[in-house]
Amino acid sequence: MDDADDAISELSAVPGRLTDELTVRHPVPADHARLQVALAGWWGGLGGQAGAPQRQLLVPRLFLQHFAGTSFLVERPDGTLHAFLIGFLSQTDPDTAYIHFAGVCPDGKRGGVGSALYRRFFALAREAGRTRVRCITSPDNRDSIAYHTRMGFRLEPGDRTGDDGVPVHADYDGPGLDRVSFVREL
Amino acid sequence: MDDADDAISELSAVPGRLTDELTVRHPVPADHARLQVALAGWWGGLGGQAGAPQRQLLVPRLFLQHFAGTSFLVERPDGTLHAFLIGFLSQTDPDTAYIHFAGVCPDGKRGGVGSALYRRFFALAREAGRTRVRCITSPDNRDSIAYHTRMGFRLEPGDRTGDDGVPVHADYDGPGLDRVSFVREL
Repeated sequence: MDDADDAISELSAVPGRLTDELTVRHPVPADHARLQVALAGWWGGLGGQAGAPQRQLLVPRLFLQHFAGTSFLVERPDGTLHAFLIGFLSQTDPDTAYIHFAGVCPDGKRGGVGSALYRRFFALAREAGRTRVRCITSPDNRDSIAYHTRMGFRLEPGDRTGDDGVPVHADYDGPGLDRVSFVREL
Repeated sequence: MDDADDAISELSAVPGRLTDELTVRHPVPADHARLQVALAGWWGGLGGQAGAPQRQLLVPRLFLQHFAGTSFLVERPDGTLHAFLIGFLSQTDPDTAYIHFAGVCPDGKRGGVGSALYRRFFALAREAGRTRVRCITSPDNRDSIAYHTRMGFRLEPGDRTGDDGVPVHADYDGPGLDRVSFVREL
């Protein structure tokens, strides 16, 4: 998907090496504080003043405790956080895997790391017998909508049409928390 | 645990009848809006102005989509929500089940309904081969701490001691989001 992808290892081994510089591993609960810093800082003010605390509350420690095997952290040589993906296997729908939250640090965007994490998650979900992946994003997050479309996700029908013609689910995650819903076959 | 428990069905069949008046079933995504109303209103101002939106953000729609089989709603004869429990099986620790959020409407407290939902969750977790249940609460939620202690949970060691002598994990779920951590063998 990205020009830099050729340099990124497609090995599904985790922990392992993603590039010459970057390593990938599953998270542990002690990673929660640095993940909270990333959630506050990496989205560049998206969602206004409420955006950062909302993103932080969406990733409570439980995801690192109980869904670590389907989640990834990417670190730089100095151990700082470069990217992450938090996902799980649906316990209600045996066909579905779900990507809850993913992000790449501002300096690392367009380097193919996010796509590499998505593809690792797809491979892992397939191994677990899943046939589709779902995720959501905010209607005002145009980068995320463009990114998921490039990654092969399709937008699910909503109950209204947003500014850019995207189908929006009003109040999807609570009052005022509209969402765009994606699905991708595996 | 409560005087009213005798009247409550211990059948593990869901959907089913909990008492003459109350029915229990697994949630569906369309229940999210009423659950959000409950999360805003049932805790009586706990956590100040930030409390209600924090509780609402902690239960995004994904829990009703992907962890419905380990979650329960209790409804009154007129269909209004009386109580709920949102839980899941850990995908990292095969011994652990986790209760993420549970609540009973203010009029229904001390009626044994919360305990009945906990016991149903315990039974379901045991059937799935789990040997322990974990959950957390806020250090300022004294009712919740007393309740979990009565239900056989023990408090896990923290990194400081709170006002009532309870062990507190500082910034457990993010900056300023201290938590008390419980575990109960099954």
